[in-house]
Amino acid sequence: MANSTVLAGGVLTGNELNFSAGPGALPRTVLEQVQQAIVEVPGQGLSVLGLSHRTPWFRDVVDEAAENIRRLLDLPSDFHVLFLQGGSSLQFGMIPQALLQTPQDRADYLVTGYWSARSIEDVSRFGRLNVLWNGASQGYRMLPPAASLQPDPRAAYFHYVSNETVEGLQFSEIPGRDDVPRICDMSSDFLSAPIDARRFSLIYAHAQKNLGPAGVTVVLLRDDLLARCRRDVPTMLDFHRHVEARSIYNTPPVFAIYVLLLITRWLRDEVGGLAEMAAIHQQKSQRLASVFDNRPEFWRLHAAPTARSLMNLAMRLPTPELESQFLRDAQAAGFSGLEGHRSVGGVRLSLYNGVTLAAVDCLADFLREFEARWDTAP
Amino acid sequence: MANSTVLAGGVLTGNELNFSAGPGALPRTVLEQVQQAIVEVPGQGLSVLGLSHRTPWFRDVVDEAAENIRRLLDLPSDFHVLFLQGGSSLQFGMIPQALLQTPQDRADYLVTGYWSARSIEDVSRFGRLNVLWNGASQGYRMLPPAASLQPDPRAAYFHYVSNETVEGLQFSEIPGRDDVPRICDMSSDFLSAPIDARRFSLIYAHAQKNLGPAGVTVVLLRDDLLARCRRDVPTMLDFHRHVEARSIYNTPPVFAIYVLLLITRWLRDEVGGLAEMAAIHQQKSQRLASVFDNRPEFWRLHAAPTARSLMNLAMRLPTPELESQFLRDAQAAGFSGLEGHRSVGGVRLSLYNGVTLAAVDCLADFLREFEARWDTAP
Repeated sequence: MANSTVLAGGVLTGNELNFSAGPGALPRTVLEQVQQAIVEVPGQGLSVLGLSHRTPWFRDVVDEAAENIRRLLDLPSDFHVLFLQGGSSLQFGMIPQALLQTPQDRADYLVTGYWSARSIEDVSRFGRLNVLWNGASQGYRMLPPAASLQPDPRAAYFHYVSNETVEGLQFSEIPGRDDVPRICDMSSDFLSAPIDARRFSLIYAHAQKNLGPAGVTVVLLRDDLLARCRRDVPTMLDFHRHVEARSIYNTPPVFAIYVLLLITRWLRDEVGGLAEMAAIHQQKSQRLASVFDNRPEFWRLHAAPTARSLMNLAMRLPTPELESQFLRDAQAAGFSGLEGHRSVGGVRLSLYNGVTLAAVDCLADFLREFEARWDTAP
Repeated sequence: MANSTVLAGGVLTGNELNFSAGPGALPRTVLEQVQQAIVEVPGQGLSVLGLSHRTPWFRDVVDEAAENIRRLLDLPSDFHVLFLQGGSSLQFGMIPQALLQTPQDRADYLVTGYWSARSIEDVSRFGRLNVLWNGASQGYRMLPPAASLQPDPRAAYFHYVSNETVEGLQFSEIPGRDDVPRICDMSSDFLSAPIDARRFSLIYAHAQKNLGPAGVTVVLLRDDLLARCRRDVPTMLDFHRHVEARSIYNTPPVFAIYVLLLITRWLRDEVGGLAEMAAIHQQKSQRLASVFDNRPEFWRLHAAPTARSLMNLAMRLPTPELESQFLRDAQAAGFSGLEGHRSVGGVRLSLYNGVTLAAVDCLADFLREFEARWDTAP
């Protein structure tokens, strides 16, 4: 494989040194299984690309993937687990269309970064958008303390984004009120740590961060919220149909769901569960913090310390030239995916489940070297 | 590889003996390239599953796939080529929502089988549905002669399905009128033969028949029809946004589009174009017709002869027991995907681009053997 970097104790491949914000790194053992499945899914005699979504095999794939997610999250039995298409962007419209019954119905939203700003775009077509807190004027560097929010008890639902991928902000507590349906876009931290699912009515996450390839979106939908979802909507936007068909209403993205299944097995069997996954993320974060917090004037993290994400670290270096130099040197050393989001520029490190501790150690070494070279520059 | 069947002159794998109605067979050389790309896309040093949709590489993938489709179809320059999610089922709602400006606006539809019956489900939410012809009472065995239709010159558009996958019916001429925007769901015969694209305003096709894996839908949209598309719709259902972003509005299904690119290269370079592809389909059809038309009381094709599809042959055998026996024997011989659609039962052979002449010869031999065994049964 190209771009391999020698590390004490082993060789990391380009795929392992991928710090992209998504699609990004997937576990090596999963990639190996996927490669095999392109020719033949074990026991099926056919390529995963040639297996019909109406085979018993695929029904089992969907059911096992759903069951693995249930167990990993200790999900209450009144949740439906769906696999849909269209990414979080389709959910941004599908959710208000389903839940706002009249134009007078109101929904509370937090706007804490690029993606939650996108999440509100369709709401006013279907009801009243109430932005409860907006961090734009502060440059999306911090998150509201949960206690400071005054969510409306009459709101149809309360919506927020748990991890802002672009700015690198992550909630460490759950905002909102437990008597209003809580809806969360967890696209970029889903299955990275245990969550208290009982406090949510709907959770959604596209796959291309922690779960697999782009093209599938997981939706966890509690039955009492489903009962409130409108049916007089276009058929593909009707949550009821997808629940009734157990995610095989029309042809689903078979390949993406199969890879997602392999990822859930990996989490269950190789990682050992979400508590173990969360512990790994804590270690990754500490190893990088030991670099960044030592030289905050060099590594200019975007997020306020209390809002810092375990998934994405967005930062600027002292000059644009230094940022370009950093990205060039990193690429030459075998790293990839370190560019900041096009809306903010700079540098971003993404540390999803597929990024190993070994890769983070390798990156930390590179960061220290780069910093030291700058110190000694003429 | 499992399920290989020895054929004079070579060995066919299970993947080549896959006659599924989709997802189904893909060319062997494409599967080999995909397998390599799971570990490393040539020249990129990364897995196709880890490459961001914001890389220059992926911009090139989308642009080349679009360009290949343009050239294969000799598409006029005023068409936009889009890659969307949600399958044809999402288009069933997205198209009337975009094009019916008022509830009084009217759209003409043909209902010629299972899928076109699905295509009308959402229309009445947005305007007036006018079913110009409905083959249900005749059991969807024939298609209307184009000359017999009286499309409404005031209709916002005219919609039909060029190939009915479930029943095995395919139009051999283009219905509708040239002064009303013609919209066609070509999901199951797209890129199987040249078409006169100038006579269409919008063509769409999901990938999992002739184009690649499930999860991506190609939309060819003429600029003058785009100009009529409403913008006051949920963002992900707004054709304008997808055109402006050249198919990278949100994260697209990177993997599915990459495989689709490989398929278009295969059509261009290995097959040699759509005229060549169409000639292969004619040969496949003739070789099977020599079996079926010899014993029509045994192979009871669903479609009337004038409506018979080159893509799918749906049929019943004399008894349900014989159908079960056929499916069991076929499986034992290494074939797969021969079950009829769950709505009609029986047997179905699908002959998409990825199914080779060699595989069809192999199947024809099996069909003759099966028939002969039945003749001599006690």
